Amino acid sequence: MTHTPIDPAELTAALIRCPSVTPEEGGALGVLEDVLSAAGFACWRADRGGIANLYARWGDKGAPRSFGFNGHTDVVPLGDEAAWSVAPFGAEVKDGMMWGRGATDMKSGVAAFAAAAVDFVQQTPPDGAVILAITGDEEGDALDGTTAILDWMQEKGEAMDVCLVGEPTCPEEMGDMIKIGRRGSLSAWITITGKQGHSAYPHRAINPLPAMARLVDRISAHTLDEGTDHFDPSTLAVVTIDTGNAATNVIPAAVRATVNIRYNDIHSGDSLTEWLQGQLDAICQEMGVNGALEVKNSGEAFLTPPGNFSDLIVRAVEAETGRTPVLSTSGGTSDARFVKDHCPVVECGLVGKTMHQVDENVSIEQIHQLKAIYGRILRDYFAG
Amino acid sequence: MTHTPIDPAELTAALIRCPSVTPEEGGALGVLEDVLSAAGFACWRADRGGIANLYARWGDKGAPRSFGFNGHTDVVPLGDEAAWSVAPFGAEVKDGMMWGRGATDMKSGVAAFAAAAVDFVQQTPPDGAVILAITGDEEGDALDGTTAILDWMQEKGEAMDVCLVGEPTCPEEMGDMIKIGRRGSLSAWITITGKQGHSAYPHRAINPLPAMARLVDRISAHTLDEGTDHFDPSTLAVVTIDTGNAATNVIPAAVRATVNIRYNDIHSGDSLTEWLQGQLDAICQEMGVNGALEVKNSGEAFLTPPGNFSDLIVRAVEAETGRTPVLSTSGGTSDARFVKDHCPVVECGLVGKTMHQVDENVSIEQIHQLKAIYGRILRDYFAG
Repeated sequence: MTHTPIDPAELTAALIRCPSVTPEEGGALGVLEDVLSAAGFACWRADRGGIANLYARWGDKGAPRSFGFNGHTDVVPLGDEAAWSVAPFGAEVKDGMMWGRGATDMKSGVAAFAAAAVDFVQQTPPDGAVILAITGDEEGDALDGTTAILDWMQEKGEAMDVCLVGEPTCPEEMGDMIKIGRRGSLSAWITITGKQGHSAYPHRAINPLPAMARLVDRISAHTLDEGTDHFDPSTLAVVTIDTGNAATNVIPAAVRATVNIRYNDIHSGDSLTEWLQGQLDAICQEMGVNGALEVKNSGEAFLTPPGNFSDLIVRAVEAETGRTPVLSTSGGTSDARFVKDHCPVVECGLVGKTMHQVDENVSIEQIHQLKAIYGRILRDYFAG
Repeated sequence: MTHTPIDPAELTAALIRCPSVTPEEGGALGVLEDVLSAAGFACWRADRGGIANLYARWGDKGAPRSFGFNGHTDVVPLGDEAAWSVAPFGAEVKDGMMWGRGATDMKSGVAAFAAAAVDFVQQTPPDGAVILAITGDEEGDALDGTTAILDWMQEKGEAMDVCLVGEPTCPEEMGDMIKIGRRGSLSAWITITGKQGHSAYPHRAINPLPAMARLVDRISAHTLDEGTDHFDPSTLAVVTIDTGNAATNVIPAAVRATVNIRYNDIHSGDSLTEWLQGQLDAICQEMGVNGALEVKNSGEAFLTPPGNFSDLIVRAVEAETGRTPVLSTSGGTSDARFVKDHCPVVECGLVGKTMHQVDENVSIEQIHQLKAIYGRILRDYFAG
């Protein structure tokens, strides 16, 4: 039986035509399930909380080697629909580009790795397992997305030895960057409370503003670190201080501030929370005020140290594009933050310039290049 | 011709019955003009900007000695009219108290000094001039009130050697305090502007918040002074800091703060403005931000140093009440802040507990005591 290779651009178009704005599945996972099932993949739904998630495996559970892909089929909303010059779910092709919501983020990536995986197992069946973990909730809260698949996998005894996330990673040219980690991001809401009073008699009041000012000055001036081998220095930004007191003759009771920290692998959400709490406690002690701290840690910093897995990917990118990708830890969050708790994870995808924008579009040539990169990675991985 | 003494309580009642909520004259100055004209006072209206003001003089312009009284007949609004248990302009008398808007602030004070002045010039005509400068705009903007009378006086060559402001000055008991000065009050609005950006990339933005925090910390921690002979230490309160940025991933472009300073006679509005500007300039230099300062000086600090004039008043209060008044510079502003540019000014009045409140009321006994104090002051002044 001769296998007809899957056209990743056609598969991308089929996915774009599914209106899968989070949390809607929109038919996208169904399209993939059909293609994968036909090629011998076992498919399961790891749905949770109204979110559709697809887990597909070719090869045996517990195979000696397994390679996983992770991605999402959900897309962000259209924004100003009237501003689109094409049908947002039309997958129109012109001038070598394919247009539509999700064209780069990341239906092309999912189509490329699904096509590469199908061709690979059909043409050169490996001694191992090829796994696809595809979620319908990456752009939303991500509470029931890749996390739900990983939870389901753990429950079922399913595992990946390594995982490649197919998000767009290249800032300018195809192949110029892969990501081996991400900074963590933590937001903190600080409230300092004193005692209200008349500004003509400040000794009868406890003004919370000087305490907040001193705290903000201290934490803003603090150097969290000088950077690490693969990360830039961590950054802290106080993004707002608010009181809402319109009366010049009143000392207010309370003031609030919000802090955002982007941190590298020296820190953790817990270590930063402890540091902030310590700073706040010291100010409360010094200034006789009360403080409250609320923290939301959106993702820990993580790193897949450069090594065999990243080398494999770099070589494949070089071979297919002629470029040596930078190993970066820059940018925002992705589901790699969840996968990294289970296995080494690297992100490698195409150029993401128009993601989340009106008239999102992708180069059809890049979709084919990406499929070629993924196919080469699979061959090299199972040959290694 | 025998003079029938003026009953200051009856005159207070007549004034309360005039609904003279700022800027309405309400007939109040007319009542006074009638009483004063009948007693030989020359009366002029120094009206300006829709505000009625009365200037009355007994004796010659340019007399060897002149004594002035200053006060106002306008009153603050009723507030919650339904909450009044009496007719607010009824001047009802019960339990030794007279009730109504302006009963303490300060129709009783005006009635007491008008009655004292009329009796004095009728019974013991002095070798000098007795002057009454009474405005209809003290509770409002005060732009066309006592200032208008003082401007008119200057234009006409009229002057007072000394001036007594009849505002309520006693915190608890009749005679417990007179005021020989007031703190100044200055409000400042500070805006610090940086450059907006993404909080993940703070090096591409200029966050104005750390600069504001450092400025607020510095000016709040600064000791303006240790107080002076007759003044408490000056105070500074930062009463609000506001940004209004709801997005944790955005570094805002600007932040605003408001500062209120209550200052003694070491400082002036100009010296404090210069100091604030210097502090702001230093921060802008240090932190690479831009700053803007807007200042409103509501009144300079002033002092009529204890001496002959205050001694005269203290002795009169002691003689009529048995209490030695404290010489204070506490409290909010009054028209003494305008008068002090023309002649020594002291404030001496009754207990002001219910001023500006619903069911404002005054002790009838205190009105009579106040008239007696003012009468004694006039006799002693012209005898001295």
